[in-house]
Amino acid sequence: MQHVKGLEAGKVHIDGARLWGSLMQMAQIGPGIAGGCNRQALTDADKAGRDLFVRWARDAGCEITVDAVGNIFARRSGSHPDAAPVLTGSHLDTQPTGGRFDGVYGVMAGLEVVRALNDHRITTLHPIEIGVWTNEEGCRFSPAMLGSGVVSGTYTQAFADSRVDREGKVFADELVRIGYRGSIPAARRPFAATFEAHIEQGPILERDGVQIGVVTGIQGAYWLELTLRGVPCHAGPTPMEMRKDPWPCATAIIDGAYAIVARNKPWARVTIGDVRVLPGSRNTSPAEVILSFDLRHPDAQRLEQIVASVETRAADECAKCGIDLKAERTWHMPPTAFDERLVSLLEGVATACGYSNQRMISGAGHDSLHIAQIAPTAMIFVPCAGGLSHNEAEHATQTDLAAGTEVLFRSIVHVAGT
Amino acid sequence: MQHVKGLEAGKVHIDGARLWGSLMQMAQIGPGIAGGCNRQALTDADKAGRDLFVRWARDAGCEITVDAVGNIFARRSGSHPDAAPVLTGSHLDTQPTGGRFDGVYGVMAGLEVVRALNDHRITTLHPIEIGVWTNEEGCRFSPAMLGSGVVSGTYTQAFADSRVDREGKVFADELVRIGYRGSIPAARRPFAATFEAHIEQGPILERDGVQIGVVTGIQGAYWLELTLRGVPCHAGPTPMEMRKDPWPCATAIIDGAYAIVARNKPWARVTIGDVRVLPGSRNTSPAEVILSFDLRHPDAQRLEQIVASVETRAADECAKCGIDLKAERTWHMPPTAFDERLVSLLEGVATACGYSNQRMISGAGHDSLHIAQIAPTAMIFVPCAGGLSHNEAEHATQTDLAAGTEVLFRSIVHVAGT
Repeated sequence: MQHVKGLEAGKVHIDGARLWGSLMQMAQIGPGIAGGCNRQALTDADKAGRDLFVRWARDAGCEITVDAVGNIFARRSGSHPDAAPVLTGSHLDTQPTGGRFDGVYGVMAGLEVVRALNDHRITTLHPIEIGVWTNEEGCRFSPAMLGSGVVSGTYTQAFADSRVDREGKVFADELVRIGYRGSIPAARRPFAATFEAHIEQGPILERDGVQIGVVTGIQGAYWLELTLRGVPCHAGPTPMEMRKDPWPCATAIIDGAYAIVARNKPWARVTIGDVRVLPGSRNTSPAEVILSFDLRHPDAQRLEQIVASVETRAADECAKCGIDLKAERTWHMPPTAFDERLVSLLEGVATACGYSNQRMISGAGHDSLHIAQIAPTAMIFVPCAGGLSHNEAEHATQTDLAAGTEVLFRSIVHVAGT
Repeated sequence: MQHVKGLEAGKVHIDGARLWGSLMQMAQIGPGIAGGCNRQALTDADKAGRDLFVRWARDAGCEITVDAVGNIFARRSGSHPDAAPVLTGSHLDTQPTGGRFDGVYGVMAGLEVVRALNDHRITTLHPIEIGVWTNEEGCRFSPAMLGSGVVSGTYTQAFADSRVDREGKVFADELVRIGYRGSIPAARRPFAATFEAHIEQGPILERDGVQIGVVTGIQGAYWLELTLRGVPCHAGPTPMEMRKDPWPCATAIIDGAYAIVARNKPWARVTIGDVRVLPGSRNTSPAEVILSFDLRHPDAQRLEQIVASVETRAADECAKCGIDLKAERTWHMPPTAFDERLVSLLEGVATACGYSNQRMISGAGHDSLHIAQIAPTAMIFVPCAGGLSHNEAEHATQTDLAAGTEVLFRSIVHVAGT
C-alpha cells in the first residue's frame, strides 16, 4: 500500500453522519409502503430523486452532464485537463418494494467522496465523476442495467428507446417527459478506473462478521426454461398407468439440478423462482409443467457444463417418461472478472484502514458488469442485515456504510492522484 | 333378469338416430370455438338450451315443473296416481370449452326414453321424470353439482342463491333473469329409483373394448393444499447451504404422494393440477411453494389413510428441511355407493341386450352423488373417444349412446312397471 499524499493514516476522512443523512433524505422520495422505497425508473419519483442528486452535486461544485439514455455524470475537475476521469457510481432507481440502500448507497457514497475531497481541500490530478445509471433494476423497463449497457455497447440507444413498460409507456417518451434525455451520446469514453460501492444483497459478510467485501467479479447466470408437455385428463377417471403426467418427471429433473449444483459447490447456485402448471385446474392432470431454472457460477466453462448437465438430465428423464420436452435458454449473463490491480488496491486500502475484509464474488448483476467491459473496474460490498435486499426492510448500518465509503474515498484518491 | 311386459327380447326400442339428432341440435345452442359447446349455467345460452328441452318434453307429452333452484322436472304420468316417480336425468350446462355429450347425453337419453315409451304406447305404473339439474359444472358458480345438492339437502337454497360468478353476478339474480326461478321448493321428495346415463369421461371402457359401464359408485376425493414457506432470497448472492428453499422438500413430498398412491393401486389417484410459487420471480428463491393435491379412492377408509399418509410425509419432510408447513384439506367429496339392486338390474339388462359390460367406479363427481343420498340410484357409462372430456373434442359414437339409452329404457320400464 503506497502512501497517498494528503491522506492521514488512521484517520476517517468521510463524514458518516452526513452520508447517512443523504441516504435518509433520498429515501423520502418515492416512499414505499413499509419503510422502503418505490422509485422506479423514469417515474415522477425517479425525476425528483435525480433532481435532488443534481442539486447536491452542483452544491458540491460538480458540473452535470446527462447522456441520451439519461445517465447522469457529476464531474469534479482535476488539475490535469486531459486526464481520464475516475468514475464511481451506481443507480437511484429502486424495485417497487425496494430498499433505501440498493444502488442509492453507491451514488451517495460517490457524493460523500466529493464532499470529503472538498472538506480536505484535496485537488486530484484526474477528474472525479459520480455516475447515476438509468434503469438498473429492470422492473419497469426490461432488461435490467440498461443505461450502463448502452454505454458499454451491449445495447443500442434505439433498443433502449423502444423498451415498453407494463402500461405500454415507452422508455424514450418517459425519459423526455422527466427531462433527462441528455445531449451527449450514451457511448464509451475513457475512464482511468471505475468503482461501485453497494450493499452485498447476500448474507455472507454478516455471517462471517466481515465489514468490507472486496468484489473480484460477478457470477455468470443462465435462465433455463423447461416445458414438460403431458396429456391433460380429469383427476378422477383416468387410471394412473394411463396418464402422461409431467410431475414424476419434473421432480426427477428438479432433484437432478440440485444434485448437479451440489457437485459444483460452493459457487454453483440453482433457483426455481417460477413454476407454471397449465391449465392450472386442481382436478385436471397438467397439460404442461413449465419450470424456470436460474443457474449461476463465476466460471464461464463450469457454468456451461452445469447448464448442459441439467439439460441432459431433463432430456433423459423426459425420454424415460414419454413426456415431450422443450428446453430454452432464455437469458444469459456471462461471468465478469474485475480488474486485479483495483481489487488489490481496495483490499490494501481496507486492510490499511483496519477494516476486516475478504474477497468475494457478487451473486447479483450490477452496472459494473457492463462498465467492466470498457474500463478497469472493481466493487466494494458492505454487509446488509440478514442478506435481505429487493425488500423494503433492507438495512445496513451507518458504521459499515461509512467504512465502505472511506475505502472508496482513499482508493479514488490513490488512482486519481494528488 | 325378470321378463318385462311390453318389451321384446332382441329388439332395440329406442331410436338412435333421433337421439343423435337431439344431441346435435342441442349442441347448436351456445356453440364453442372448436366444435364443442360453451353453455355455462344461467347464461342466455343455458336459457335457450332449457327452453328447447322444455319444448321437446312438452311435445312428448310431459308436464314441466321447475323448482326454486332452477332444476327442471319433465313428468310423464303413470297409471298409478300415488306411485313415486322413476327419475332419469343429468345436466345441460357445460364447461366454457365443453363437449356436446357431458351431461347433455343423460338429459337427451331421458327424453328418448319418453319418446320411445310413446312410440310403443307403453303406460308405466310409476310416473317417469326427466331431471335437468342446475349448475352441475361449477365453472361459473362454485361449487359444482349445486342444483342436485340443494335437493339432497347438502346445500341450502340461501347458499345457492348467494353464489357469485367472476363478474360479480349473483346466482339468484341470474336464475330470475333467465326465467327459471321455479315455484316449488328445491327439496327431497320420494323417487322409486333414479338413473343417470353419462359418457365415461375416462379411457377405461375404450381401452377394454366394452360398451356399457355399470357404475357401482363414485370415488371419494380430497383436495389437500400444502403451503411450504421458505425464506426468499436473491438467486445470486445467497450460498445454497444458507437458503431455506422449499423446492427440495416439495419434490420429496410429491414423490412421496405418488409412492403412496402406487401402494394403493389400481384405484388410488393423485393429481397435482395447480402449483403456485411466490413471489414468482425467476431470480428469487421462493417465499412459498403451494402444492395442490387431488387425492381419490372409492373406499372412504382407504382414502382417509392415503390423505393422512401424504400429510405425514409432508410434515416429516418439512421438519427435516426446516421448512414451515401449512396443510389444509380444502374440499372433500365422500365416496358414494350406488344401490346394489339397481346396479344388478343395469348389469342384467345390458347382458340381456347383448351389450358387453363391466362394473366400474366413477372417477368424476355427478349429480347422482347427491341424489343417491335421498333415493336408490345408479349410473350407466358409455365410452368416450380417448377418455377426453371437458374438452370441445369430446366424442362418443351413436351406437354406444344408443346402447346406453336402450339399457336405460329397459331398466326404467322394469322399475316403473307396466
